[in-house]
Amino acid sequence: MITSAANQQMKHVIQLNKKAKTRYEQRVFVVEGIKMCMEAQKEDIQAMYVSESFLKVPEHEGKLREYSYEVVADSVFKMISDTQTPQGILAIIKMPEYTLEDLMGNKERPTHLLILESIQDPGNLGTMIRTGEGAGVTGILMNKTTVDVFHPKTIRSTMGSLYRVPFYVTESLEDTLQDLKKQGVSLYAAHLKGKKSYAEPDYTKPCGFLIGNEGNGLSDKIAEYADEYIRIPMEGKVESLNAAIAATLLMYEVNRQRSKK
Amino acid sequence: MITSAANQQMKHVIQLNKKAKTRYEQRVFVVEGIKMCMEAQKEDIQAMYVSESFLKVPEHEGKLREYSYEVVADSVFKMISDTQTPQGILAIIKMPEYTLEDLMGNKERPTHLLILESIQDPGNLGTMIRTGEGAGVTGILMNKTTVDVFHPKTIRSTMGSLYRVPFYVTESLEDTLQDLKKQGVSLYAAHLKGKKSYAEPDYTKPCGFLIGNEGNGLSDKIAEYADEYIRIPMEGKVESLNAAIAATLLMYEVNRQRSKK
Repeated sequence: MITSAANQQMKHVIQLNKKAKTRYEQRVFVVEGIKMCMEAQKEDIQAMYVSESFLKVPEHEGKLREYSYEVVADSVFKMISDTQTPQGILAIIKMPEYTLEDLMGNKERPTHLLILESIQDPGNLGTMIRTGEGAGVTGILMNKTTVDVFHPKTIRSTMGSLYRVPFYVTESLEDTLQDLKKQGVSLYAAHLKGKKSYAEPDYTKPCGFLIGNEGNGLSDKIAEYADEYIRIPMEGKVESLNAAIAATLLMYEVNRQRSKK
Repeated sequence: MITSAANQQMKHVIQLNKKAKTRYEQRVFVVEGIKMCMEAQKEDIQAMYVSESFLKVPEHEGKLREYSYEVVADSVFKMISDTQTPQGILAIIKMPEYTLEDLMGNKERPTHLLILESIQDPGNLGTMIRTGEGAGVTGILMNKTTVDVFHPKTIRSTMGSLYRVPFYVTESLEDTLQDLKKQGVSLYAAHLKGKKSYAEPDYTKPCGFLIGNEGNGLSDKIAEYADEYIRIPMEGKVESLNAAIAATLLMYEVNRQRSKK
């Protein structure tokens, strides 16, 4: 049993939770909780740690039968966990590797992309990935200044969707948008300049939605790539909606149109 | 100028930010930032504090002309602020007081309620209030175990909607739901048992949506009050959506139906 946070493996977990740089150098990340650990592909699990008291629960022992893991003292587990009340199980997982091609749809399920520019809140990003899976996006495209998808809070908010929704971080969002347009993907941006309601365009064809930073919205540079500006109706004196909320309405409008077809 | 956090007024602000109990005893709360301070009704402002460096910005001085305020040393302001990078202005505001009646609509704008059971995340609650205003709800009803609407994080996430959306915290959600039903409000709950899609019912009539706690959903006791269980379609392996996300889709479906009418 590991009884000290000075243990090399424990230091490694803490480092991976704290530093995106370490995650990308080693191409691994940390997931916490029974659901996230059990949903990982077994071959992607590099290491698993469980707390003493987690192991004492009879049903947990059964679940762990097919895994190799190390036991960690409760007090040490609390220190390596990113949550206030840790469930007592975490794992180091190999990063999935997608190409832009993996985000594209096909004839039966046309491309449906969520495209994020500089989203800063990890919880917001995770919620968008979770909602994206629910709405049926084919993938999520992000620029480099969007918060890390492997941030512990992002991972938690995805509720497992992180394993299932293809995503891609592009070095140049402008180049990639150009590329998508060439491939016939229509791009839409919710924008104050938009005249058409977001429910009007035909989203049964390949499409992508540009969502900007929480505080500043889309940059002019990126908004220019939109084929059309659309408008989400807002009553009262609301000036804008939260990024994840706007994304939800757009992605679910696609879902609605496509399920009618 | 106030130069010590031991100053009685500074201690008062810190206490109000930290403790819901103090807020309700005194029936005041704290708002931060220029937008939230300027949007408050002048007669509701009990005190205003600005940091030294905030005051040095020429345009700020103009904005403050009609207000009385106290200047606080930057280092002290940082200690009374609830944010990591304070804007340098905060105010103590009188709580608005609504009755259940204030949440009800009328013939032109039928009742449209968001009804929350034990929502725990203050950011989630704030986002729902903001989105609720955007979608055009007539009010937000909460049970007593929902996180405090005057929590600093809730206030921030509302982006000012807190001043404009009537809300009511009921001692007994069951009694109030009974009352609403008697008044002809149809209640809907997004529920795994739901067969009908959320877009099917007629929401042009008075309606309310029951949204449950983030982790556990609606309690059986409260879900029973729904006239109809509805279903939000979910692709992939998503088991549920975030509470604010589900609320968004329901509230905006009402908006869609009513604006078509």
